[in-house]
Amino acid sequence: MAGNTFGTLFKITTWGESHGQATGVVIDGCPSNIPLKESDIQKEVDRRKPASTSKISTTRHEEDKVQILSGVFEGKTTGTPISIIAQNKNIREEDYNDIKTAYRPGHADYTYELKYGIRDYLGGGRASGRETLARVMAGAVAKKILLLKTKTEIFGHTVQVGDIKAKKFDTDYILKNMGVTEKDQLRCLDQKTSKKMLKFIEEIRFREGDSVGAIIEIIIKNPPKGLGEPVFDKLDADLAKAMMSIGAVKGVEIGAGFKTAEMKGSENNDQMKIAGGKVKFLTNNCGGILGGISTGEDIVIRLAIKPVPSISKELKTITTSGKNISINTLGRHDCCLAPRIIPVAENMAAIVITDHFLRQTSIK
Amino acid sequence: MAGNTFGTLFKITTWGESHGQATGVVIDGCPSNIPLKESDIQKEVDRRKPASTSKISTTRHEEDKVQILSGVFEGKTTGTPISIIAQNKNIREEDYNDIKTAYRPGHADYTYELKYGIRDYLGGGRASGRETLARVMAGAVAKKILLLKTKTEIFGHTVQVGDIKAKKFDTDYILKNMGVTEKDQLRCLDQKTSKKMLKFIEEIRFREGDSVGAIIEIIIKNPPKGLGEPVFDKLDADLAKAMMSIGAVKGVEIGAGFKTAEMKGSENNDQMKIAGGKVKFLTNNCGGILGGISTGEDIVIRLAIKPVPSISKELKTITTSGKNISINTLGRHDCCLAPRIIPVAENMAAIVITDHFLRQTSIK
Amino acid sequence: MAGNTFGTLFKITTWGESHGQATGVVIDGCPSNIPLKESDIQKEVDRRKPASTSKISTTRHEEDKVQILSGVFEGKTTGTPISIIAQNKNIREEDYNDIKTAYRPGHADYTYELKYGIRDYLGGGRASGRETLARVMAGAVAKKILLLKTKTEIFGHTVQVGDIKAKKFDTDYILKNMGVTEKDQLRCLDQKTSKKMLKFIEEIRFREGDSVGAIIEIIIKNPPKGLGEPVFDKLDADLAKAMMSIGAVKGVEIGAGFKTAEMKGSENNDQMKIAGGKVKFLTNNCGGILGGISTGEDIVIRLAIKPVPSISKELKTITTSGKNISINTLGRHDCCLAPRIIPVAENMAAIVITDHFLRQTSIK
Amino acid sequence: MAGNTFGTLFKITTWGESHGQATGVVIDGCPSNIPLKESDIQKEVDRRKPASTSKISTTRHEEDKVQILSGVFEGKTTGTPISIIAQNKNIREEDYNDIKTAYRPGHADYTYELKYGIRDYLGGGRASGRETLARVMAGAVAKKILLLKTKTEIFGHTVQVGDIKAKKFDTDYILKNMGVTEKDQLRCLDQKTSKKMLKFIEEIRFREGDSVGAIIEIIIKNPPKGLGEPVFDKLDADLAKAMMSIGAVKGVEIGAGFKTAEMKGSENNDQMKIAGGKVKFLTNNCGGILGGISTGEDIVIRLAIKPVPSISKELKTITTSGKNISINTLGRHDCCLAPRIIPVAENMAAIVITDHFLRQTSIK
Repeated sequence: MAGNTFGTLFKITTWGESHGQATGVVIDGCPSNIPLKESDIQKEVDRRKPASTSKISTTRHEEDKVQILSGVFEGKTTGTPISIIAQNKNIREEDYNDIKTAYRPGHADYTYELKYGIRDYLGGGRASGRETLARVMAGAVAKKILLLKTKTEIFGHTVQVGDIKAKKFDTDYILKNMGVTEKDQLRCLDQKTSKKMLKFIEEIRFREGDSVGAIIEIIIKNPPKGLGEPVFDKLDADLAKAMMSIGAVKGVEIGAGFKTAEMKGSENNDQMKIAGGKVKFLTNNCGGILGGISTGEDIVIRLAIKPVPSISKELKTITTSGKNISINTLGRHDCCLAPRIIPVAENMAAIVITDHFLRQTSIK
Repeated sequence: MAGNTFGTLFKITTWGESHGQATGVVIDGCPSNIPLKESDIQKEVDRRKPASTSKISTTRHEEDKVQILSGVFEGKTTGTPISIIAQNKNIREEDYNDIKTAYRPGHADYTYELKYGIRDYLGGGRASGRETLARVMAGAVAKKILLLKTKTEIFGHTVQVGDIKAKKFDTDYILKNMGVTEKDQLRCLDQKTSKKMLKFIEEIRFREGDSVGAIIEIIIKNPPKGLGEPVFDKLDADLAKAMMSIGAVKGVEIGAGFKTAEMKGSENNDQMKIAGGKVKFLTNNCGGILGGISTGEDIVIRLAIKPVPSISKELKTITTSGKNISINTLGRHDCCLAPRIIPVAENMAAIVITDHFLRQTSIK
Repeated sequence: MAGNTFGTLFKITTWGESHGQATGVVIDGCPSNIPLKESDIQKEVDRRKPASTSKISTTRHEEDKVQILSGVFEGKTTGTPISIIAQNKNIREEDYNDIKTAYRPGHADYTYELKYGIRDYLGGGRASGRETLARVMAGAVAKKILLLKTKTEIFGHTVQVGDIKAKKFDTDYILKNMGVTEKDQLRCLDQKTSKKMLKFIEEIRFREGDSVGAIIEIIIKNPPKGLGEPVFDKLDADLAKAMMSIGAVKGVEIGAGFKTAEMKGSENNDQMKIAGGKVKFLTNNCGGILGGISTGEDIVIRLAIKPVPSISKELKTITTSGKNISINTLGRHDCCLAPRIIPVAENMAAIVITDHFLRQTSIK
Repeated sequence: MAGNTFGTLFKITTWGESHGQATGVVIDGCPSNIPLKESDIQKEVDRRKPASTSKISTTRHEEDKVQILSGVFEGKTTGTPISIIAQNKNIREEDYNDIKTAYRPGHADYTYELKYGIRDYLGGGRASGRETLARVMAGAVAKKILLLKTKTEIFGHTVQVGDIKAKKFDTDYILKNMGVTEKDQLRCLDQKTSKKMLKFIEEIRFREGDSVGAIIEIIIKNPPKGLGEPVFDKLDADLAKAMMSIGAVKGVEIGAGFKTAEMKGSENNDQMKIAGGKVKFLTNNCGGILGGISTGEDIVIRLAIKPVPSISKELKTITTSGKNISINTLGRHDCCLAPRIIPVAENMAAIVITDHFLRQTSIK
């Protein structure tokens, strides 16, 4: 029980079901005197919305108008809890009547009923992707703090859809060209490959009624040095938890990640030198984290995103009364989650970095 | 600060440096009336020791004799904190005098000094692999609870060393043949491949003075159903944190993991049926966890293990006073960590499952 | 930072300022399948309101209409976070313009500005008594759980106002006559004394423009046995924290409390006997808690309530720019807080008992 | 479960039973680079020992030799967990054979068995006063931090034994004369009254075979301003919890405490002025805490200490098999706990102040 709070000093508690009245978050531990407007949060929340023109995303129209209900006075945070809320506007109960009595394959319907003995079947209830809205609200505040107190920037992009892989760029190039990524329907910087990916997705979606997985990469640029609290609250451990807690994520790797399995120590060890009076690492295989503590180099995280479970192909499942049936999952759904999970993952990263930044500054 | 406690109801706090007087753990929240002997813990701790005959492991002789100092009365747990300790026997300070003034590449020397402004340079201090001893002590108690209260069994094996991959087996076969794995120097069930791996490791170690990475797999068989506390303390999120907090782990995947990127929804979704009155899943791509809650199927986790950073090849680094130098890292070290990390990862999994088992039973 | 969450398994996070848009709570860890309606919460919230006819309370008209925004589906809790909210209706900014630049004596104005470097001066902001509304909302849910899962009843009454002390009654009599207490303007069961207290209060308020302190008593009848988690989360320790965290409380005692200082061991020790096959205590000086664990006897807590700091007498203070002045505190304020704090304290007790009930049931 | 950890950033976990092998604490979150020697801790631990010549204390000879096992390198803290331990030397099992089958009145024997279904009957097991040794060890480290980073001093004294009350002194006088208090067998500064108290205690102990309660006062001088995290982790709330978690404490009051019940607002409100450019409070009825946040004035806490439950008078109780009997409690016991609880309460206060100091410094 009680798994909806995250963080030690920058502590967020989220709430809300897909088709409930509203979705929100309470942020406790935000430093005081941080300038904060609803538009700061709205901007980030809007990045999570499905592009209205998009062929790959849900056509559900979510307004997600953000309101700050507490913790801000005359445009500044007061150090007291910040309650942020968005009303749920577009509630169509009829869409879900047919899945009331069946467990959708790949969804959490079965496990929620198993665990709680009751299930809010409307749109997946708490297990819906809509839950991530509150994470983005909280992350927007974290990003504001990082901007003010550090030079940290956090951004993500799609590096693989199905077996189509984007070209590799270095992190400076990616940062400089964030505008391109941001406008891209798949949030893929490599524009040529993005087109291929998009074509592939359209085929899968419209011809096959199917969906597809992806890999995304989150980069934390200029993170504060010395963040992370060994041996359990290591920075990579808390990032891994934050990422794996996002619905569709099935794998997390830091730096060279699974490739380190095939590397030798002499290749993988990031050598160091002093140049111009500054400490430099010759490589960054560790992904900016050594012994669970940030080196100050870019923190690089890659996430495996599973294909959207809601598809129009018929699959075998069982009813709540224990009968074998086949169902498809109609409704307004995404086909490839990569572009929509990117802002969620970025914001979860921002929350982790902010929390550890506050934990670290406390010891001086 | 304060990152050395893990768990909500089954709460462990570990302490100890590589060359300090002792290493230990306090377990708070162990249910009462669990039969517990020092030998229960010693058995598990011994599995973590380097095999004395092994060519791939450190020759440091760690006795690791376990003592229970509290929380057990007349052979049973009392519900009060269990303090477990092992004296550090084999302390050779002279081995580390040369790294006192330099940061070893791939080690946490630099980040610890950065963070804390002070560093216990003897054997890596708290950043040493010796820290995992306390995790195994705690895990041994968790395994005891799981054995008594559930049918859960947890076991790991090596599936890849460098680019050499072991044959795939199903989890029942792996369980049945744990004896083979346990006797294998690399904890690899596929005996033919194990020999190849071992030969490869010996070459890398003795000819090249280098080390190599690996992938290990942890299987949780017959886990209780319904474990996991969405949306942040999902079972996979807490497992990911537990695993990523282990020193050499750079990647974590659950079930099909990074492969899901290339899968379609219709392939990846685990279909269900009723057979013989029981719920069955046709596949287990989700790795036993849906929506962050256990389905009751095997939980399958794979971990990327980086190559041991301590090698005898010279690498570039800097001194604490900011000079460029090259160093090798002599001393008694492992070459491939896979076989030694397996018991650590198993026991971290046991701790997570026990904690969530207690959290779940509490709501009825 | 981050001090607005309370509880381990039944975890509440409150938010809201006196003159902000709304006040609310998120309850995480409520067991599923508990029937819950807005009226269950409204009923308890209404008990906290100032009696409209009362001469001793604020005339501010607080509607406090409760809304449940999440965590309840078809009338039952789902195990997901319950977000409860009440809009703030009666916001009059002009009332507080004069205290914008001065620290009211006895209020937290000075310390909030000291701590946070910013202060929401409207009605005391987060330091307002309005904050307790969210505690009552959460407590109403806790009371619902206790009603369903145990026979525990929690109720409070005023035992002293100024130096006027109410007659002592045994707890069974108090329980049986709760209706009398509930209708009494001071929530004092002893009707004769209540009239004296009321007369005394009216004099202090209207003649002197002053306020007065009180002592209230909270009784937890039929608590579950065995609750409390030594050595720090003892039941009395957590109750003491819960109570002392309520604004005006300056003292907490359990059972015989401060009287034990004058008692001998032979008097204070609660002797035991078996009668009719049941364990009985001959006295209950320990107030139902021994070694931090509930005995099953009534838990009895007494609280010192300081006089309301807002009075119309002029007192010395300083301005935010460091000048000496004298101010009085006009506005709509209570004179004696006892009757309004009683439901708050009852509900905080309910939260503690529920949290410990969940923690205790988890070990079986 | 899991109630043996205290604190958020300065986090202590204690363990150990009265007659187990050892008692100890793990401190997680101690800032690095704090000079720390075993003698710093030993000094504080020795203050908790019964005076060997004392007529009012147990004659059990506890050596309590302190060892630091981790977290300190070359005389300074490293930021890693500090494990401190003391072996239990003087174990006489035979003393407790007769209480194996009966519940001592006033002790936690009955509730521990109720809760855990098992009881370590040797000397009270975990419910023994010996548990406080670990609190003092941890507090000694907290005091060291406070000394280095702030000017805070914490000291306690006995103000009442039975109905004998000591003269009142102001806190400056008490601080200046701590040497007198420290040498006094009852830790009572008022030497005339101390003699009366001692005579009274001797009579009760040796003539009546009984024990007696007391009131002690803890003063926190020059505390940092702005400490405390409303609305639940208020400084007074956390102090109340810390104090009430000490075995014999049955009441806690801050500042004017229970006296505020009889005060008017105009008396109780601490008026302010600027004098010599400094903020001054004309009185300190709030005990240095307003709205849960420290003002910078002395924090004053008074604790009700119940009489020692172990007495040689026969009292009624029941056996574990449910029979009515009468027992006395022989053995080596204190008669009035005041002087021995003072260092425990001081050190718990130091732990709370240090934890909140770290929490507060983290927001800048």
